[in-house]
Amino acid sequence: MIGKTTWVIPDGFLPTTSSGDQVSHEAVCVLNLGDEDAVIQLTFYFEDQAPIADFESVCGAQRTHHIRLDKLKSKTGAPVPHGVPYAIKVDSNVPIVVQHSRLDTSQEALALFTTMGYSV
Amino acid sequence: MIGKTTWVIPDGFLPTTSSGDQVSHEAVCVLNLGDEDAVIQLTFYFEDQAPIADFESVCGAQRTHHIRLDKLKSKTGAPVPHGVPYAIKVDSNVPIVVQHSRLDTSQEALALFTTMGYSV
Amino acid sequence: MIGKTTWVIPDGFLPTTSSGDQVSHEAVCVLNLGDEDAVIQLTFYFEDQAPIADFESVCGAQRTHHIRLDKLKSKTGAPVPHGVPYAIKVDSNVPIVVQHSRLDTSQEALALFTTMGYSV
Amino acid sequence: MIGKTTWVIPDGFLPTTSSGDQVSHEAVCVLNLGDEDAVIQLTFYFEDQAPIADFESVCGAQRTHHIRLDKLKSKTGAPVPHGVPYAIKVDSNVPIVVQHSRLDTSQEALALFTTMGYSV
Repeated sequence: MIGKTTWVIPDGFLPTTSSGDQVSHEAVCVLNLGDEDAVIQLTFYFEDQAPIADFESVCGAQRTHHIRLDKLKSKTGAPVPHGVPYAIKVDSNVPIVVQHSRLDTSQEALALFTTMGYSV
Repeated sequence: MIGKTTWVIPDGFLPTTSSGDQVSHEAVCVLNLGDEDAVIQLTFYFEDQAPIADFESVCGAQRTHHIRLDKLKSKTGAPVPHGVPYAIKVDSNVPIVVQHSRLDTSQEALALFTTMGYSV
Repeated sequence: MIGKTTWVIPDGFLPTTSSGDQVSHEAVCVLNLGDEDAVIQLTFYFEDQAPIADFESVCGAQRTHHIRLDKLKSKTGAPVPHGVPYAIKVDSNVPIVVQHSRLDTSQEALALFTTMGYSV
Repeated sequence: MIGKTTWVIPDGFLPTTSSGDQVSHEAVCVLNLGDEDAVIQLTFYFEDQAPIADFESVCGAQRTHHIRLDKLKSKTGAPVPHGVPYAIKVDSNVPIVVQHSRLDTSQEALALFTTMGYSV
């Protein structure tokens, strides 16, 4: 099976502002090449507070899911905090592949970056 | 032989708009360091529909091919869909190295991102 | 334990100018998933001078730290030089994961790039 | 010793135009953590012509070298071609770490991308 069950992304940040037609955001992009749906736990780590672990998402079998972090809600309905540095750990019940991207429109025009997650 | 025969890229997206002189696009950039042409199958995975597997391309021996996904056609002549998130699996009959890049000119100026594909 | 104790980043550069509201900068983004604080040594390599090794930072247990290289000071109070190419080696007493990002606002709008560090 | 002696980068391209104060360019960013100078051979692969292998550069021991591909000359004085897709193989006599970056100012503002090279 292609993929891993744990991935980490040290550089997370949701810009607080946007310009133009597109909202600044990040996405945890998951590919599930298996035959079973992936149930995905996202844990967010911060510089000055304890980790928050109650975010969950699903990626269907043979599907991709570009999990928009600006839209994700915790089990208690809380959003991912904007404007503070964080890091992400992604845990799945089945092997997945994880890539992380940011779209930043906080100044005119837009900027993009991406990297594969780090897996063990 | 340098390379692998299977590569995946979770974050695929073709912007629907462009500005300036350059068309928004993605490219699957292949390097084939071997002595045999690489016949490459591209499978696209979506969030809400079954994968589409009938895309094929070739990269000659000792050649690179920057496969423009905005120009690629399936065996039935269909384009890669624009404006929807997808993921890509790249399968080759011989080892290759795969990098994936996006040029986005959907707002003024341009944005670029790139990453090596993930290989098993 | 997820991570490694040594990471390298060949492409470091602090732009000398900025525009708009955001200062051009780089960050070495660390995630420490362990139960012990990470004490981190940063060594900077140059094209035409000997390496400088007296930069140190800390990333708490179960915390991230996005180390702003434009704000980092050596033990003698020296900043990381701007406007010259450098490379970075990151050494930690405990396993960490390292990603490196640059925000460049030297021309109008902004540009971003990122990559996971290279680990052995 | 940290590093590898062979690295590949499938997505190479030198834009033909620039805007603002900065010239569009790519750099092969090398870090040599060893005690011996690295003599580096660069081979360029194309879509429609044979590879060109007569480019050489040096990265000193305990030094970085951000090899500017827009300034690099072959042993016969030829530049790296602009405006055509290429791929790069980097071979060194000693282990090095290779990252590849592009600065594109072909439209207003600037865009950046980067990735670690792929090593075997």
